[in-house]
Amino acid sequence: MAAHASASPPLQDHMRRMLRAHPAPVALVRDEGGLVECVEACFDCAQTCSACADACLAEEMVAELRACIRLNLDCADVCDAAGRILARQTAADPPFVRDLLRACLAACQACGAECERHAAHHEHCRVCAEACLRCEAACQQLLDALPVASRARGDYVP
Amino acid sequence: MAAHASASPPLQDHMRRMLRAHPAPVALVRDEGGLVECVEACFDCAQTCSACADACLAEEMVAELRACIRLNLDCADVCDAAGRILARQTAADPPFVRDLLRACLAACQACGAECERHAAHHEHCRVCAEACLRCEAACQQLLDALPVASRARGDYVP
Amino acid sequence: MAAHASASPPLQDHMRRMLRAHPAPVALVRDEGGLVECVEACFDCAQTCSACADACLAEEMVAELRACIRLNLDCADVCDAAGRILARQTAADPPFVRDLLRACLAACQACGAECERHAAHHEHCRVCAEACLRCEAACQQLLDALPVASRARGDYVP
Amino acid sequence: MAAHASASPPLQDHMRRMLRAHPAPVALVRDEGGLVECVEACFDCAQTCSACADACLAEEMVAELRACIRLNLDCADVCDAAGRILARQTAADPPFVRDLLRACLAACQACGAECERHAAHHEHCRVCAEACLRCEAACQQLLDALPVASRARGDYVP
Repeated sequence: MAAHASASPPLQDHMRRMLRAHPAPVALVRDEGGLVECVEACFDCAQTCSACADACLAEEMVAELRACIRLNLDCADVCDAAGRILARQTAADPPFVRDLLRACLAACQACGAECERHAAHHEHCRVCAEACLRCEAACQQLLDALPVASRARGDYVP
Repeated sequence: MAAHASASPPLQDHMRRMLRAHPAPVALVRDEGGLVECVEACFDCAQTCSACADACLAEEMVAELRACIRLNLDCADVCDAAGRILARQTAADPPFVRDLLRACLAACQACGAECERHAAHHEHCRVCAEACLRCEAACQQLLDALPVASRARGDYVP
Repeated sequence: MAAHASASPPLQDHMRRMLRAHPAPVALVRDEGGLVECVEACFDCAQTCSACADACLAEEMVAELRACIRLNLDCADVCDAAGRILARQTAADPPFVRDLLRACLAACQACGAECERHAAHHEHCRVCAEACLRCEAACQQLLDALPVASRARGDYVP
Repeated sequence: MAAHASASPPLQDHMRRMLRAHPAPVALVRDEGGLVECVEACFDCAQTCSACADACLAEEMVAELRACIRLNLDCADVCDAAGRILARQTAADPPFVRDLLRACLAACQACGAECERHAAHHEHCRVCAEACLRCEAACQQLLDALPVASRARGDYVP
């Protein structure tokens, strides 16, 4: 361990630094900040939703939280895939990014709305609705920033 | 291990049997077979793409396979999320299924087309193109079978 | 789609064919068959467990199936990671494979035992116990087949 | 969207707040801080490793970074599974947590050491080695904090 240890404390902001350190420029959008925010919001939402599913499962009224748990798990799966894919910059801008962002936005919307219904009774749902809302907004902003070219299908030459 | 071992040999066809054993009926589509095929095609494609990324990485001409590896990893991520989500039948038919299927179909199309370009030289790309093609067709069939109601957004009541 | 379509019907057995088509030889174990079986068992178990979590969630007695759902989700996560990692053959035999196999085996054991308890009442738990048992056995066989060298940590030179 | 929007800006620190909001107490360890740090370090490492694989893939010397990419992908898979599982508190302390933590620690060690070798030439490897080191330390601390009871297998009653 000593061999690869650095003396400095663990630094944060890893994703922003990774996207900047990539040998290829950010090709997906001009606004690097919007991409970083969306990637981070996707991963944050994926984790929060996964934890919310587990917290709902432990609630006494679990039977009434079935739809919430299901949407939590779905949202976690879509957000995790979106985060990984958006963070890739090699051979960038694949033709399915727009549909994936739409699916991610809609998953956050559905999960966030359901969590919001339970927010008054369950703090974990309140926090999760927050994460969904942030991710939904980030997906919308990135969708708006995507170049028109990538809106059409079939124009991708890797 | 003996405690929970059954004497019979491990049976296959687990996904079909799981979807049938679900306490809620298949609500997403009327044709159970189309759903099973799509779930299985998604998981099969996810695994094959993940393995193809690794096989491409070991090729001497890896530098020319960058786009292929990237699309392999993307396709694996989208297909895995789609497989998990489509297999869920609790509080079924969430409003993002259509966009997710579209993203999955487009990812299989892009990855399959790229793999097909290398199919003559790399058997793993040939096998992967096959898996992508199967998954693309299964997504298209499921999209066609989805009820019109789920085409509009915002009409989902969990 | 026609551009990259092959006339033949979708073939199966993709994972076995992928592992054989890899440019690097199978370095992890001498018995290729044991590796293929373990990779397939891991992915099959991951999918079945994910579906069992959802089926349990829809049961009337969901409150009594909390531990089962939690173990289902855990087992799905470990098996999915194990399947992906074991299928990689580039720079093979990383030093964490043994611990990962042990964790996967133990997750299958715990999840299978819990599912077995509900097998009489829930067909999905019976099928899931089957998938867990198969994966547990495949992990044990692969663990037994691993060369002694990889048992020690710190001897890995990528 | 307005329906479930809160006026406040998106708050951070979601994982810590989720773990605190869980209806079941943290059963895995007495030190909540150590658990939160480990979950966050796992997810951070998974994301950073996934991004490092992509950045390595775009490097001119990609052929020399094969082992790094493979270990990046492996480490991402193990860390992601570990993060999800550790964040669950329902029916807590499953018997495979110790092996999983060991596998995660070893994956971070191997990936971090390989990235460290390229840190002088590739900033993304330097950042990734940092994330691996942090996660390795967090896993070690959590392993040390685990109660003795969970060290033995087979003593788990869900």
